[in-house]
Amino acid sequence: MEALGLCTDLYELTMAQSYLENGKAGRAVFSLFVRKLPPNRNFLVCCGLETLLEGIERFRFTDREINYLKSLQRFSDDFLGYLKDYRFEGNIYAIPEGRIVFQNEPLIQVEAPLPDAQILETLVINVIHFQTTVASKAVRIYLSAGGRSLVDFGFRRAHGLEAGIYAARASYVAGFDGTSNLEAGARWNIPVFGTVAHSYIMIFDREEEAFRAFARSFPHNSVFLLDTYDTLEAAKKTVQLARQGVPVVGVRLDSGDIPYLAREVRRILNSGGLRDVKIIVSGGVDEYTIKEWIDEGVPIDAFGVGTKFITSADAPYLDMAYKLVEYDGEPKVKTSPGKATFPFKRQVFRQISGGQMERDAVVRYGDTQEGDPLVEKIIDGGRLVRDLPSLKELRDTLMQELKGLPPDLRGLSGGEYEVIIK
Amino acid sequence: MEALGLCTDLYELTMAQSYLENGKAGRAVFSLFVRKLPPNRNFLVCCGLETLLEGIERFRFTDREINYLKSLQRFSDDFLGYLKDYRFEGNIYAIPEGRIVFQNEPLIQVEAPLPDAQILETLVINVIHFQTTVASKAVRIYLSAGGRSLVDFGFRRAHGLEAGIYAARASYVAGFDGTSNLEAGARWNIPVFGTVAHSYIMIFDREEEAFRAFARSFPHNSVFLLDTYDTLEAAKKTVQLARQGVPVVGVRLDSGDIPYLAREVRRILNSGGLRDVKIIVSGGVDEYTIKEWIDEGVPIDAFGVGTKFITSADAPYLDMAYKLVEYDGEPKVKTSPGKATFPFKRQVFRQISGGQMERDAVVRYGDTQEGDPLVEKIIDGGRLVRDLPSLKELRDTLMQELKGLPPDLRGLSGGEYEVIIK
Repeated sequence: MEALGLCTDLYELTMAQSYLENGKAGRAVFSLFVRKLPPNRNFLVCCGLETLLEGIERFRFTDREINYLKSLQRFSDDFLGYLKDYRFEGNIYAIPEGRIVFQNEPLIQVEAPLPDAQILETLVINVIHFQTTVASKAVRIYLSAGGRSLVDFGFRRAHGLEAGIYAARASYVAGFDGTSNLEAGARWNIPVFGTVAHSYIMIFDREEEAFRAFARSFPHNSVFLLDTYDTLEAAKKTVQLARQGVPVVGVRLDSGDIPYLAREVRRILNSGGLRDVKIIVSGGVDEYTIKEWIDEGVPIDAFGVGTKFITSADAPYLDMAYKLVEYDGEPKVKTSPGKATFPFKRQVFRQISGGQMERDAVVRYGDTQEGDPLVEKIIDGGRLVRDLPSLKELRDTLMQELKGLPPDLRGLSGGEYEVIIK
Repeated sequence: MEALGLCTDLYELTMAQSYLENGKAGRAVFSLFVRKLPPNRNFLVCCGLETLLEGIERFRFTDREINYLKSLQRFSDDFLGYLKDYRFEGNIYAIPEGRIVFQNEPLIQVEAPLPDAQILETLVINVIHFQTTVASKAVRIYLSAGGRSLVDFGFRRAHGLEAGIYAARASYVAGFDGTSNLEAGARWNIPVFGTVAHSYIMIFDREEEAFRAFARSFPHNSVFLLDTYDTLEAAKKTVQLARQGVPVVGVRLDSGDIPYLAREVRRILNSGGLRDVKIIVSGGVDEYTIKEWIDEGVPIDAFGVGTKFITSADAPYLDMAYKLVEYDGEPKVKTSPGKATFPFKRQVFRQISGGQMERDAVVRYGDTQEGDPLVEKIIDGGRLVRDLPSLKELRDTLMQELKGLPPDLRGLSGGEYEVIIK
């Protein structure tokens, strides 16, 4: 799939053909926004713009796509010709990746002749929705971990390979230290982590033999997985091996009663002189368990975070829509119950007071307000007009944003933030 | 990403290198199974084998992958040479796509030299986990809809483009009539559906003008979207337009109080002589709403199913693991609490009584039992030894299976099925 033209719902193409047939090719603005945050999200983290821009570049209709569409016997030759020549030559306005956003704020705005903007609908929503969903989950985990190390272990339970790769990227933006995902490591130079699975321990006749073999192969990354048989016995073996000169930098617990086991393991390691050996916990970890354990003072140095993170299990989707807000200079609004929209291209001004975010004002683009404008023009007439930041820079953007986040939004529930729409 | 070698968690490669260094390259069997079904799943539908086989074919380490791994400064030249030459030459046993499965049943078993089987772990779990998750959600929707038409509208809220494409495939296996997803339509010849969005209606000065324009462009697929402004007024306009000879095959409701609106719209259409015009409902639909509406007799002919389906929102992941069960002819088990596994390569016999599934027996491969054996050898020495069925055939397999499904497993909760492990 080199060309992405068919990453489209059929109705975008039926609409586009009908627009062209009915002379409706005036300038339109579509806005991508979240109507309402899920109950367990106090804020969202913008993510996915870089991937979207790559996707738009590849949004083409080559012979493969045209021949398929022709086979449907719905589309006119004129329209298929239009698709064949399709290149996005409009404008894209975005709130940059790594910025914090709220309901009714335009993450992406696409300004182009109506059919040109319409047919990007599925691509724009799909890319930004997923990466924003998972970055917004990851940052909750980051805030709960209070500075402890976090590693994405979720690749296997992501919704597809692509989801795993982009989730690793999003988690790094959101403050994770690294990932187990090698493809993500290779693409964005994200630090990669990983040691062994239970199967490795089971291959050797005795557990200590497995530990010894691994330390021999990887003396600088010698982390022992303790819970294959009996966790506390394995901790005692770790101490014995260290006394014999076997290198050990950490131990991992992946199952069982974590608060009890982590405390006992810490005690065993410490009494064996292994105060520097880190305890890493994985297996069903999310921001709720992390917060609980940290609040109880459980001695854990690092978390491997998998399934619940990578599926954003407590909020696996957002109420995100790509809505027409302006056509030919005129405002467009939908008035049906519960789905009202706000017209016109928009800017968001973030008002800061005493270093803290106080409120956001969503105003018509071009109007001014006090505060920090979030929306930037990224693509002008089809051409990139901003340098795209590195992943490290995106992460720094978010870390900076988090410093100004009001305390009640940092917690796991219950925060409210004022967004005024003018 | 032509080669998929880096679709791997780092620990698989560290383990593999250590296995080779320690002479642990004997024949191993890994089993992919679900430990426990989610509370709201009575059974699962196997899905993803075809994609997995394509993935294994592409699981290679070219210069790009090798250079990245070399840059990590962890791996020996010997091991990088092993990866460079890697081709899967082992055996794969699978329960075919479209079959119904339960906890502790081996969906996939990989038999190969230990390092060769180990490094496929993430790929095997990722592909089968996602497609099985979403097929298992889709079949619940299918069973709830009682024969009414179902179309996948979820592409935009899937976790990435790939997730949307494979979910469309899974939904078709699970009995949906089609998808809005053009890429899935093109790949597997799945019927595609779609008409217009609210933005289309809003572009025209008057709603009836929009209806008229669409019917002109697509007279054979002329479905009117009623809920942009006032749903019942739009239904009345539909009747008026039909009287003027404008073609109309269906109407769609996407928001509001669906039971009330569907009944009123049906009444308006019928009293205008439009008894054949179908009512299609979309917007937040899942098996729970479908069942409720059908139980109440709400007149709906077809459902467009999106977000909650494609994210499997009520069970976005399965407790699925890829576990070593046999090495060098010896059984392998993990005994840590809550994660016990069963040793050896396995076969599953499904015992049928009076046309209904009665119980499954999971036995050691090679042992016999009465019943229908589910596990088939698909790859032998790296070569495909079965014809892969078409998507239509997979769908027929599942429809056949569903006929034998006990009544209490067909519902939305509370079914139990006996799986005996010998």
